[in-house]
Amino acid sequence: MRVRVLVTPKQGVLDPSGRATQRALRELGYDAVSDVRTGQVIQLEIATSDADEARRLAGEMCEKLLANPVIESYEIELASDD
Amino acid sequence: MRVRVLVTPKQGVLDPSGRATQRALRELGYDAVSDVRTGQVIQLEIATSDADEARRLAGEMCEKLLANPVIESYEIELASDD
Repeated sequence: MRVRVLVTPKQGVLDPSGRATQRALRELGYDAVSDVRTGQVIQLEIATSDADEARRLAGEMCEKLLANPVIESYEIELASDD
Repeated sequence: MRVRVLVTPKQGVLDPSGRATQRALRELGYDAVSDVRTGQVIQLEIATSDADEARRLAGEMCEKLLANPVIESYEIELASDD
């Protein structure tokens, strides 16, 4: 089962990479971009067909390794296999 | 309008960060993880209510700045504002 984990800085935590990206976009003329937040995407292939189990495992992995829960929040999405 | 851009290495392009993450997960006992790919997520707030326009702008930004089309592929997703 394919699982997508998104790790982004929590609201209120500085995101210098997002700031730099926004500035660069504005220099290219994209003034309509009012905010940019950057983070990491981690695509996991987990050998289970049980969606709940995949989600539970991914959550554990986030808490233990993939995210820093002090400053980052994470989202877990199960990808539909097509 | 909130737009999410996912930038990941193309198939066949080395992903050392994904490899390292997979190894670390295995050392923690997550043997069910058979593949890990990592990339960047960029969340854009674009001042338009036109979904097609937002998608078109995000695509341009990817080609010009956000992704390296030689080695990276990108996906654009419009977030539902709730």
